[in-house]
Amino acid sequence: MQAALVGVTGYAGMVLYQLLKGHPNIKKINIYDHKLTAPADLASVAPVFKYENVQVQPYEPSQIMAANDVVFFATSAGVTAKASQPFLDNHFPVIDLSGDLRLNTRDQYEKWYHKPAAPEKSLQQAHYGLAEFESVKGQTYVANPGCYATATLLGLAPLVQKQLIDVNSIIVDAKSGTSGAGKKLSASTHFTEANDNLQIYKPNQHQHIPEIVQELQKWDQHVSTIQFMTTLIPVTRGIMSTIYARVNAGVNQAQLEQAYHHSYDQQPFVHFTDTELPTIKQVVGTNNCDIGLAYNPETKIVMIDSVIDNMLKGAAGQAVQNLNQMFDYPETAGLALQPALI
Amino acid sequence: MQAALVGVTGYAGMVLYQLLKGHPNIKKINIYDHKLTAPADLASVAPVFKYENVQVQPYEPSQIMAANDVVFFATSAGVTAKASQPFLDNHFPVIDLSGDLRLNTRDQYEKWYHKPAAPEKSLQQAHYGLAEFESVKGQTYVANPGCYATATLLGLAPLVQKQLIDVNSIIVDAKSGTSGAGKKLSASTHFTEANDNLQIYKPNQHQHIPEIVQELQKWDQHVSTIQFMTTLIPVTRGIMSTIYARVNAGVNQAQLEQAYHHSYDQQPFVHFTDTELPTIKQVVGTNNCDIGLAYNPETKIVMIDSVIDNMLKGAAGQAVQNLNQMFDYPETAGLALQPALI
Amino acid sequence: MQAALVGVTGYAGMVLYQLLKGHPNIKKINIYDHKLTAPADLASVAPVFKYENVQVQPYEPSQIMAANDVVFFATSAGVTAKASQPFLDNHFPVIDLSGDLRLNTRDQYEKWYHKPAAPEKSLQQAHYGLAEFESVKGQTYVANPGCYATATLLGLAPLVQKQLIDVNSIIVDAKSGTSGAGKKLSASTHFTEANDNLQIYKPNQHQHIPEIVQELQKWDQHVSTIQFMTTLIPVTRGIMSTIYARVNAGVNQAQLEQAYHHSYDQQPFVHFTDTELPTIKQVVGTNNCDIGLAYNPETKIVMIDSVIDNMLKGAAGQAVQNLNQMFDYPETAGLALQPALI
Amino acid sequence: MQAALVGVTGYAGMVLYQLLKGHPNIKKINIYDHKLTAPADLASVAPVFKYENVQVQPYEPSQIMAANDVVFFATSAGVTAKASQPFLDNHFPVIDLSGDLRLNTRDQYEKWYHKPAAPEKSLQQAHYGLAEFESVKGQTYVANPGCYATATLLGLAPLVQKQLIDVNSIIVDAKSGTSGAGKKLSASTHFTEANDNLQIYKPNQHQHIPEIVQELQKWDQHVSTIQFMTTLIPVTRGIMSTIYARVNAGVNQAQLEQAYHHSYDQQPFVHFTDTELPTIKQVVGTNNCDIGLAYNPETKIVMIDSVIDNMLKGAAGQAVQNLNQMFDYPETAGLALQPALI
Repeated sequence: MQAALVGVTGYAGMVLYQLLKGHPNIKKINIYDHKLTAPADLASVAPVFKYENVQVQPYEPSQIMAANDVVFFATSAGVTAKASQPFLDNHFPVIDLSGDLRLNTRDQYEKWYHKPAAPEKSLQQAHYGLAEFESVKGQTYVANPGCYATATLLGLAPLVQKQLIDVNSIIVDAKSGTSGAGKKLSASTHFTEANDNLQIYKPNQHQHIPEIVQELQKWDQHVSTIQFMTTLIPVTRGIMSTIYARVNAGVNQAQLEQAYHHSYDQQPFVHFTDTELPTIKQVVGTNNCDIGLAYNPETKIVMIDSVIDNMLKGAAGQAVQNLNQMFDYPETAGLALQPALI
Repeated sequence: MQAALVGVTGYAGMVLYQLLKGHPNIKKINIYDHKLTAPADLASVAPVFKYENVQVQPYEPSQIMAANDVVFFATSAGVTAKASQPFLDNHFPVIDLSGDLRLNTRDQYEKWYHKPAAPEKSLQQAHYGLAEFESVKGQTYVANPGCYATATLLGLAPLVQKQLIDVNSIIVDAKSGTSGAGKKLSASTHFTEANDNLQIYKPNQHQHIPEIVQELQKWDQHVSTIQFMTTLIPVTRGIMSTIYARVNAGVNQAQLEQAYHHSYDQQPFVHFTDTELPTIKQVVGTNNCDIGLAYNPETKIVMIDSVIDNMLKGAAGQAVQNLNQMFDYPETAGLALQPALI
Repeated sequence: MQAALVGVTGYAGMVLYQLLKGHPNIKKINIYDHKLTAPADLASVAPVFKYENVQVQPYEPSQIMAANDVVFFATSAGVTAKASQPFLDNHFPVIDLSGDLRLNTRDQYEKWYHKPAAPEKSLQQAHYGLAEFESVKGQTYVANPGCYATATLLGLAPLVQKQLIDVNSIIVDAKSGTSGAGKKLSASTHFTEANDNLQIYKPNQHQHIPEIVQELQKWDQHVSTIQFMTTLIPVTRGIMSTIYARVNAGVNQAQLEQAYHHSYDQQPFVHFTDTELPTIKQVVGTNNCDIGLAYNPETKIVMIDSVIDNMLKGAAGQAVQNLNQMFDYPETAGLALQPALI
Repeated sequence: MQAALVGVTGYAGMVLYQLLKGHPNIKKINIYDHKLTAPADLASVAPVFKYENVQVQPYEPSQIMAANDVVFFATSAGVTAKASQPFLDNHFPVIDLSGDLRLNTRDQYEKWYHKPAAPEKSLQQAHYGLAEFESVKGQTYVANPGCYATATLLGLAPLVQKQLIDVNSIIVDAKSGTSGAGKKLSASTHFTEANDNLQIYKPNQHQHIPEIVQELQKWDQHVSTIQFMTTLIPVTRGIMSTIYARVNAGVNQAQLEQAYHHSYDQQPFVHFTDTELPTIKQVVGTNNCDIGLAYNPETKIVMIDSVIDNMLKGAAGQAVQNLNQMFDYPETAGLALQPALI
């Protein structure tokens, strides 16, 4: 197949391009950029790819559809909202890495993203691609989940689905490396400020909150909202989502563990490590989500430690996993990545 | 006055020595070491002080009492438990930076520290020196609080004392830089492992848990236990204690803020920054505890962000603050430290 | 005395303000800012000083001279070149932390700084304040040395002054933390790019090259140029200048060491550590320059390892040291700083 | 083919195991460990591989030779010296990642490694496998180059081979991340000490010095020694070798550049980037060596900036490249690695 990639200059686009290059079912990747009016060398658009002898094309939906079998959007918030309609109208496969298609209602999007939402129809037809739970097989219009949402939802799914916790007691203390904030320069990601520091940001205002709530509600209608905080850590890549919830009366540790084994033992990318608590480094460089837990019988609170590489499972890796589901390729095609270890 | 320092080779001892050197009321610091049998150059015991022309003496209680007006113990867990009795018997002022005298019962100490506890009498006479709340004026036997306990208790005090939160809903997600783990080498603090990583450790087993509970119970007897987790961060110095609690019915944000202003506006070292959330770096190098909050009216949960420099407010700085209270010196004597800023 | 500070928003200005606050001979600091047209709160201009209840005044030379005894410029390149003339005309004491007054000729300045130079007269009257070698006692117009220049010149001085090395064999491999690049955002200091990285920058083009050469030539006219390279390191504060030079025939290691002892044993801020090679961390937080050497008898090359805190000895600290010399205060007044150690 | 790996617990062994798993020509990897007396699970020997369901065998040369086509030693200094004789006697292919077989004489080894050397015969038959210059095709006994030696030799080769520089003017200022120091705990790699720091170590005593000199001498007999210094940087992976040398009279920049293009334009893993100076991050995660230069016409000194991932091109990657040469596989087999980028 041939795959179109719109947006290769941001971090997610860069990593996605690398993954697609290594994908056994992709014959050719065609790159497109909104800012171009004429074809240009990839090296001039994204200097990091200076050894690639490849052209980038101006963005033009009809040409993208003519030349490709699928299109990935690795663009900033707001771009897909405006641009994806022609693909939808033509039932052309779209995988969108931005947040534009994740929320079901225009109101929610505009409340949390502070931008005009995609048309109602787009939002209704988009399918949220949390790969382990929402197969996008046969879908053509996929919203790839957010990084924090992925780590948090995978961490919570077994407990919520099996009704083992009080869903209104959930508190998430999530930490992310600076690559999650993207390539855009800011004081909080200036090395001199970020190094040797922790910075809590967007308290109660992170745009992944409504995304997480919306998905949890599919599993348990009693979920009304969640407490979710984000801290910027002096790490380049990686997310740790530390989740706390009160365990329902009568539930013991064995049941908690069984729920995770049941959900994930057959999944290639999610590893439940029981009471061994995963570190960020053990997943960086892979499409894995590693999950461990610590149950405190005195407080009746279970802590879930869910880690991912925000650029892979939290973005480009999961996008490829969704591609694999969409086109019925092996789930791990193009994703046989090994962790950095060191 | 003359001050004795027992233990100058660990991180807390090193920093305490620096603070005592700058203290206006201390004429002379006499250093003692358990491992010595004869006097030795400080530079040979602690090479970091290579420019100091000072001697270290072997540890001998009677000589310490003869030559000094107060003794600081900056020793490992277990040392003060065994060694402090002679000072207690003589009502000689002791400030202990280890955890040996913090817990009120031998059972609790032995359960959490896995070592023989100090004699019953020692524990009963020790006064817990959380400087803003438990003045040690007139005391002679002081347990200096733990680093995590300090950040957490100062963050919780106004809410618990004013009964603004459900004390059984408290969840603490605390993060510490590697200096908190001391000078002892370990795999988790090996640069190659700790860099670019987060590592949760001692889940539900950290020895500061009973210390925090014990002190909270003094403010509200309804506290039974707390949920408290610790994560090692790739930072040298600093603690961030992120605290979550459910606000009692009818309590609004203004009341929460007032409680902090009431507790801390007159305190030289604790700054309540309202809804501006403090970062670790803004307190590193000082004896300050900066505290901010974010109240979520949807979840009714208040998040408290409490940061300290673990070596200063979390150890040596608070020890000097306790000295100042003990001897009725100005609270800030020797502690007019400025943050590194950069 | 009263001291004027022009520029408090950059890193050097922030640190200088802290030092001046702790200086025993300064009664009052008056802060001025070019961007203001009316007085403003310091906290609004430099939020990092949120607890300071101080006003910043608009920049106005006659008022600065009326109210103060000295003025420090902690401004960007180009500001002093344009602004300092009135002070010079009135023989009013100026200490300039920018590079505007360091080079003796307008040509050199404009070649390396790519900006219009200060008037000829200003450059001629400016006195280069390398505190250990060029006393500014009795001077009124002082160019405070650059950070790299300070570490490199202090490392080279004894060898060049005593003619122990071939001055045309000097190669300097200098490394700096990101704070040296200032507060201005850039891709190379974006955490995601700078972390886990080394970046060589401005090869053969760093503006400290002519400054170093000019000063070396005062000690030995045979110096024509030097090889000098700069590498950005993932560290917040600190410079290590690694200097290589071929030792003259007949010179042995003892002579090399003696030269350093002779130059620095009486200096309060420069420590010669013989063959123990100093690390960056041992000087961070102080006005010290620590210097060690390793002589290789096979290659006849001596390596000098010279480390400073770029914000202190490399900027604000040396500026205070120059103040002390100018006004005949004790050399260490306001500079009794202790290293962070940890 | 089947490949034996002796030593999987050290960093190089861990990375080598990952590479071998992805190598298209290797059917099976058999792991051996000196410390075992009976087979054990890999997860118990190297917990980092907890998801691998593989056995480790006790070390036994005859069994290794019976079951495999090649053996890799990823062991500490001293092991191969003692252990490799049986393989040599049987002309069984060995690739040794330790330094035991790199130096040609026992004297040199014992002088720099402070351990008993391998037998004379072993040293004479070992072939130094600097993959771009010393093809090991048809060899059976290969010493894989050291990490610093690789970066430095690749950086110097074109200039020395084409006699463009004064070989007695070479000065190397090499920097390495902490993974180069291995898994063994030490004060200098304790996070609290290594973070925010630079530490020069083993001045004039690094064991890669004789290795570099020995290889340079093969290209130009006039090389007698080199000036070579090593600095530990707060980075996990990566080496930057900054090389300075005086250019011979009459040589211009174009000739310097041509030499590199000539040597490397056909090489898959070495990229000459002209005057663009490579950073460490651009090669981490790959088997690449990126090289750039800055020529200073005033000093007549050329600076070479040569960067590698010490675990890959500096260890396991080059070992696989040597395997490919030995067995006539495509040079890039198993090494199509993409840089981390972020």
